[in-house]
Amino acid sequence: MKLYIGNKNYSSWSMRSGVLLTAFGIPFEEVKLRFDFIPGSEWHRVIAGISPTRRVPVLVEDDGFTVWETVAIAEYVAERHPEHAIWPRDARARSLARSLCAEMHGGFGRLRTVCPMNIEVFFPDIGRKLWAEDEALRADVARLDQAWSEAVAASGGPFLFGAFGAVDAFFAPVAVRLSRFGLPLSEAAAAYRDALLAHPAVEDWVADAMREQDFVPEDEPYRQGR
Amino acid sequence: MKLYIGNKNYSSWSMRSGVLLTAFGIPFEEVKLRFDFIPGSEWHRVIAGISPTRRVPVLVEDDGFTVWETVAIAEYVAERHPEHAIWPRDARARSLARSLCAEMHGGFGRLRTVCPMNIEVFFPDIGRKLWAEDEALRADVARLDQAWSEAVAASGGPFLFGAFGAVDAFFAPVAVRLSRFGLPLSEAAAAYRDALLAHPAVEDWVADAMREQDFVPEDEPYRQGR
Ligand SMILES: N[C@@H](CCC(=O)N[C@@H](CS)C(=O)NCC(=O)O)C(=O)O
Ligand SMILES: N[C@@H](CCC(=O)N[C@@H](CS)C(=O)NCC(=O)O)C(=O)O
Repeated sequence: MKLYIGNKNYSSWSMRSGVLLTAFGIPFEEVKLRFDFIPGSEWHRVIAGISPTRRVPVLVEDDGFTVWETVAIAEYVAERHPEHAIWPRDARARSLARSLCAEMHGGFGRLRTVCPMNIEVFFPDIGRKLWAEDEALRADVARLDQAWSEAVAASGGPFLFGAFGAVDAFFAPVAVRLSRFGLPLSEAAAAYRDALLAHPAVEDWVADAMREQDFVPEDEPYRQGR
Repeated sequence: MKLYIGNKNYSSWSMRSGVLLTAFGIPFEEVKLRFDFIPGSEWHRVIAGISPTRRVPVLVEDDGFTVWETVAIAEYVAERHPEHAIWPRDARARSLARSLCAEMHGGFGRLRTVCPMNIEVFFPDIGRKLWAEDEALRADVARLDQAWSEAVAASGGPFLFGAFGAVDAFFAPVAVRLSRFGLPLSEAAAAYRDALLAHPAVEDWVADAMREQDFVPEDEPYRQGR
């Protein structure tokens, strides 16, 4: 199967599905589409042909069967690979993991808006300023901190439900944002963030992102160029 | 188990979980919390005690185990009730249904913003004006129309995958918005909207909403009062 993704440096949703497949060693062909925001461009032409929502990631089987939306991709892969604990084996832990994934999927809007993923850059000054001024951002981070700390305390860590799973892949881009913008976390949440950043599948993605050396102005609220 | 919901007239997310449980005849106690936006109010006090995100719906088991987020509630209920086809039985149809639910969960932002759910009111003039002026709204509706028409054509209808399931519960509040704002649809999509509105679980929810006769100013961009 193919996984179509966007720029590794910017595409947080692509990262979720890419890291999930890599972490479990599930074979797939990665097809990278470079984002742009130019009407009629290559990106727009290609994405319109493969993704019903014109967004990445999209998983496409050899016969053309298509799964879109990261949450649905996680469920699809979990059903196809029951040998992997993509969701926790315990029913209640699984339900909690899904609540957290869905919360990530539809929530944390302020964090996503003001701290977009940009793997190759550290913005500590902007992070400090945002932290001081932006109450909604602080509320998003407080909720993350609480959710992470509680789950790690209950499971014993290092990941939310012990071993790495889909829910951790969902939070990997958030760990990147928090580290790049230097946003403060409690000790338990910081340990989880660091465990995420040290996971080999996350490290691989980050290394590839660093090699991209691309610049998409629409994804760069804080830089004029590289 | 208890399902905490908001005002039936306004709370589109509550409607998804409520309609799902009712449609499959799954017993639950409905606990309605009246929304307000007053700091320190009853709503804020109660919701902080039961919902990690301070949002509804929330499903709470008798022993306190809590599931939040509509997507996670649907998966939880589906696992607890394998006797019901809450998701399609066919693996690929199930995957498609999940892609559509997730798309609804994180998408259609413009439709959700400018056409908030307000079951008791018809706004055809506002709908006509929005339709003429708002390109992003038309794009959201075009995508819905395409997704619905394709699924119904493939399954034969009346619901997206034949019989009523979780994915249809997800689209029930959208059917209400489209009908209340009188937004145009293709013939196939209009037939699906009408099938949704005529489903007994949707009719029950709508009837309860009509009896509420409440007015929450923050949920009323288009009215000054009742
Ligand atoms: N809810 C979607 C979000 C996908 C998404 O927003 N992808 C971004 C890249 S991270 C995208 O394709 N943006 C391009 C666009 O919106 O045109 C999912 O879970 O997959
Ligand atoms: N992604 C959530 C959305 C829940 C949501 O936004 N609920 C609204 C009511 S429809 C709410 O509780 N609003 C109150 C608030 O945000 O304070 C889900 O799927 O359950």
